[in-house]
Amino acid sequence: MRKVEVCFSPELIHLFDLEGKIVVVVDIFRATSTMVAALASGVEEIIPFADLEACRLMQDKGFLIGGERNGLTAPGFEMGNSPVAYLDGSYVGCKLAMTTTNGTQAIEKSLKAEEVLIGAFPNLKATVSHIQAQSKDVLIHCAGWKGHFNLEDSLYAGALVKSLESTHESSEDGALAMSMLFEKVGHNLKGFFYLKPPTPSDYKIMVSSGILTFA
Amino acid sequence: MRKVEVCFSPELIHLFDLEGKIVVVVDIFRATSTMVAALASGVEEIIPFADLEACRLMQDKGFLIGGERNGLTAPGFEMGNSPVAYLDGSYVGCKLAMTTTNGTQAIEKSLKAEEVLIGAFPNLKATVSHIQAQSKDVLIHCAGWKGHFNLEDSLYAGALVKSLESTHESSEDGALAMSMLFEKVGHNLKGFFYLKPPTPSDYKIMVSSGILTFA
Repeated sequence: MRKVEVCFSPELIHLFDLEGKIVVVVDIFRATSTMVAALASGVEEIIPFADLEACRLMQDKGFLIGGERNGLTAPGFEMGNSPVAYLDGSYVGCKLAMTTTNGTQAIEKSLKAEEVLIGAFPNLKATVSHIQAQSKDVLIHCAGWKGHFNLEDSLYAGALVKSLESTHESSEDGALAMSMLFEKVGHNLKGFFYLKPPTPSDYKIMVSSGILTFA
Repeated sequence: MRKVEVCFSPELIHLFDLEGKIVVVVDIFRATSTMVAALASGVEEIIPFADLEACRLMQDKGFLIGGERNGLTAPGFEMGNSPVAYLDGSYVGCKLAMTTTNGTQAIEKSLKAEEVLIGAFPNLKATVSHIQAQSKDVLIHCAGWKGHFNLEDSLYAGALVKSLESTHESSEDGALAMSMLFEKVGHNLKGFFYLKPPTPSDYKIMVSSGILTFA
């Protein structure tokens, strides 16, 4: 059996050895959900940036630029980080440069891994298939919110740990805890997220858009 | 309603505002369980130290010295951090200076709080009563293991969040997650901890000693 671990915050990632592993970065609300939605809607390429200014400069190279800080579209950027913006096919064939408060920072901190994957609920099955076609240990890197643990990324981690259980054992307490929590609430994630305090308005958008089809 | 939050690692405590709050430090295996066992067994006073050498110097001041690093009794120390050592009443009236890998570090990082409490399963009810006799927000500070999330501290956090729900709302995702997880596994914590990988031998000692009476 290979192993799967969970890191709950980019501020804890230095505690983990990334070498030789597949790292799955997850930022459900919203960077990785948006990347998956954009690619599924025809965006050709996405380059993530931790730094706002480096991302902005990509506009001159013909990239669409998406920038978000603290939940708002960053000044001067064409796109925020809403997955809904890509769904009507307006950006088919575009190249996207993207920076967000949490998700793209987590990607940058994962680059020592053998491979970095972008995880979100809509591409869960594809992620599992891709991982199980190899034989490598996995670390799920939750982007969280400004260093804090968050529920949506952690529950995705639990879903992925559960989905990998035929090939990867939970070798660490975080993976075991989130797998158990997902067992408890996974049948009703939509209802569960409405419990989450405070309830930002974007949850409603996200859930009703069908981007986060938890079933 | 007052608020309750959970911090899963001393490496994340800088993200939380401690001022005016009650911070409950928890290190189930084993610092805080041992402190509670020692006090319940007649030890008169405990002074926690983050630093090994500062703790060692207390021997000259008539203190019993307990020192643990990486699960082992530190060289030159009279006591490790096993709660079992205090149960036969051999240390009634003693003063204890104590330093451990995780727990006493977490205490030191909590000192900006209005009040710091030591949390463990045996003193859960007393902790709840003490908190509810006041009207302050609560932060549960899990000592974890060398910065990592761990199950036993986090599940204690879930138990405390559940026990406080008539007066303190879960204002943050960690508190909500652990409250839900405790709902799922709290009826069989002993069995649950045996699932935890890897299983150190001291779990058996701890559970059979009755120190961690989870019921």
